[in-house]
Amino acid sequence: MNMNRASEPLLRENDGGIVTLQLNRPLQFNALSEELLDALQRELDVISKDPQVRCVVLSAAGKAFCAGHDLREMRGQPELDYYKALFARCSRVMQGIQQLPVPVIARVQGVATAAGCQLVASCDLAIAAESARFAVSGINVGLFCSTPAVALSRNVSSKRAFDMLVTGRFVNAATAADWGLINDAVADEDLDAAVARKAAEILAKSPTAVRYGKAMFYRQKQMELADAYAYASDVMAQNMMEEDACEGIDAFLEKRQPRWRS
Amino acid sequence: MNMNRASEPLLRENDGGIVTLQLNRPLQFNALSEELLDALQRELDVISKDPQVRCVVLSAAGKAFCAGHDLREMRGQPELDYYKALFARCSRVMQGIQQLPVPVIARVQGVATAAGCQLVASCDLAIAAESARFAVSGINVGLFCSTPAVALSRNVSSKRAFDMLVTGRFVNAATAADWGLINDAVADEDLDAAVARKAAEILAKSPTAVRYGKAMFYRQKQMELADAYAYASDVMAQNMMEEDACEGIDAFLEKRQPRWRS
Amino acid sequence: MNMNRASEPLLRENDGGIVTLQLNRPLQFNALSEELLDALQRELDVISKDPQVRCVVLSAAGKAFCAGHDLREMRGQPELDYYKALFARCSRVMQGIQQLPVPVIARVQGVATAAGCQLVASCDLAIAAESARFAVSGINVGLFCSTPAVALSRNVSSKRAFDMLVTGRFVNAATAADWGLINDAVADEDLDAAVARKAAEILAKSPTAVRYGKAMFYRQKQMELADAYAYASDVMAQNMMEEDACEGIDAFLEKRQPRWRS
Repeated sequence: MNMNRASEPLLRENDGGIVTLQLNRPLQFNALSEELLDALQRELDVISKDPQVRCVVLSAAGKAFCAGHDLREMRGQPELDYYKALFARCSRVMQGIQQLPVPVIARVQGVATAAGCQLVASCDLAIAAESARFAVSGINVGLFCSTPAVALSRNVSSKRAFDMLVTGRFVNAATAADWGLINDAVADEDLDAAVARKAAEILAKSPTAVRYGKAMFYRQKQMELADAYAYASDVMAQNMMEEDACEGIDAFLEKRQPRWRS
Repeated sequence: MNMNRASEPLLRENDGGIVTLQLNRPLQFNALSEELLDALQRELDVISKDPQVRCVVLSAAGKAFCAGHDLREMRGQPELDYYKALFARCSRVMQGIQQLPVPVIARVQGVATAAGCQLVASCDLAIAAESARFAVSGINVGLFCSTPAVALSRNVSSKRAFDMLVTGRFVNAATAADWGLINDAVADEDLDAAVARKAAEILAKSPTAVRYGKAMFYRQKQMELADAYAYASDVMAQNMMEEDACEGIDAFLEKRQPRWRS
Repeated sequence: MNMNRASEPLLRENDGGIVTLQLNRPLQFNALSEELLDALQRELDVISKDPQVRCVVLSAAGKAFCAGHDLREMRGQPELDYYKALFARCSRVMQGIQQLPVPVIARVQGVATAAGCQLVASCDLAIAAESARFAVSGINVGLFCSTPAVALSRNVSSKRAFDMLVTGRFVNAATAADWGLINDAVADEDLDAAVARKAAEILAKSPTAVRYGKAMFYRQKQMELADAYAYASDVMAQNMMEEDACEGIDAFLEKRQPRWRS
């Protein structure tokens, strides 16, 4: 198994409750080939049913985070139905990240372009090296980044998103943080430590509460205000009936550390 | 009456058209007990029918703005129906702030956590002392801040809101202003003056026009663009038929100060 | 023809694929009279059917960009039906900018107030001189900027938009850029060069891809996530079947410049 790792498009490592999924096509700047998309989908499906997983880190091998779709592979099959199926498959992966019951942190180095930038936008949290750069650059090859625009425009304000999409320009990590595309830009040598700290913060919380929260967060965002409040009130009442909430509040009132059961 | 003020959970002061509602449980960091929520709801109901009120300031006694729900009270009644009713009641207060016909300014000092941070997010405007701090920290006691997430995610971009919710981290006033959670962070000693200035600005406007505007603002935000324009056009035409608009435009054309009638 | 240009409320210039529409009522700070709104609508209608146009620049003659509606004209016809028709007509122009198949860049100098600020918000991109200032100042004449609020609140976060609307305050170009109302604030003497550079960037892209992208961008923003992905996937697959995408990707793989056909 270990011998084959270099040829696997996606590597998985488990460390306590943290699963790291590493894009592993460094020579292709981790372009999202069909094989890599399928591997991502398979891992998302497995993780979504695994109660031991508490947090996922999405990282990438080599100099780049991800350069988007595999253009050579795409050009090899010039059929409308093929493209429809391909983009639908990729969109399923992107939505799968949000549908996962646990938080996903993007760990970004180098370039994140087109569907690679979309991956960053689709994660719950993102931390990048200050040398990282972001673009939705499909426009440069005559292919407007339409599916990346879905994720980008839900993270970044309208004129900034449109500017990136229509010019294909790169923005650096500091600008990406300023615009809300990522949470933090850190010194390159501190990237692993910053990601590890964020994952550790999440692991210190009640797993039950985190799962209630992530599912609720994205669902309520798409509702009208009154519906969102009705739904969130219901979720929060359910959360209060869990042992962890009782323990957490008791610990707080007794000024001691909580011990999560879930 | 004055003798009892120390024991009232909510104090009201009238100054011209400005009503100040002061959370008054300083020893409990103004935690939103059932009693305090009810008092807030009652005042919102009264104010919503009072044409003399022009602006509301929501302030808080003591070191903290508001620490969210009263956890001790909540733990005392561990029943799903009780929690559903409690969160529904709190959500009604939060929406009541937006439904009020006049602007509400949050005056924030100290910490604003969980439903306290939600209160800030729910006000139309917010000005904070630079030493103030904000968190949706329920996750630390095993209770994800689901209803606060509704308000927070409508003020702050997605990754920033999720980060605050899943880590419970504090952000300072400067960051809160940078992220759009509040309008301004001012020197602690300037807080009252800054709030007073903002209220005075609002009182200098046509009361009729402000009422047209606030109701329209939140309603159109939830509509599709074409519907929003149809609705806003209609509201604006109605507003033009008011005496204040005629007077305001005439005064502008005649280069004099307008005298509002309403 | 040239002799009459000074009396035309809107001037049009063609330069390659770039059309510049210049608001030309400098003595009235380019107030949007009925005549000017009609001229804008006519040009938008013509441009939307002209495959030669690749980009539109919306500029303004004189010291101001645009001071909003023509208040004198409005006061002359104090009838509800007239106002409804006027705001509907103006809203149609604003939506027409977004419905145009090619990008529109606002070139902003001086003040952009009320419906003038709405024009800026309605363009896809906006570049302003650093001395430019923005306000939705109708509230100062007793007329809340309801239709401008539709565009403003889709560009700027909630509390910032409400603050501008209820106080009528000016924000400078640096703040407008920080808040996402415009893309860039540049030195006054660099404004034309900055706008020309942005237009040239757009003209260097595949016209077909840009048209796919702009129409998709605003439509998907109003959809729920799953619907947005289904729609964007379909658009992107169609885009892939165009000659320009094939040529663009081939050029990329062959490390040469693409030659767009469309």
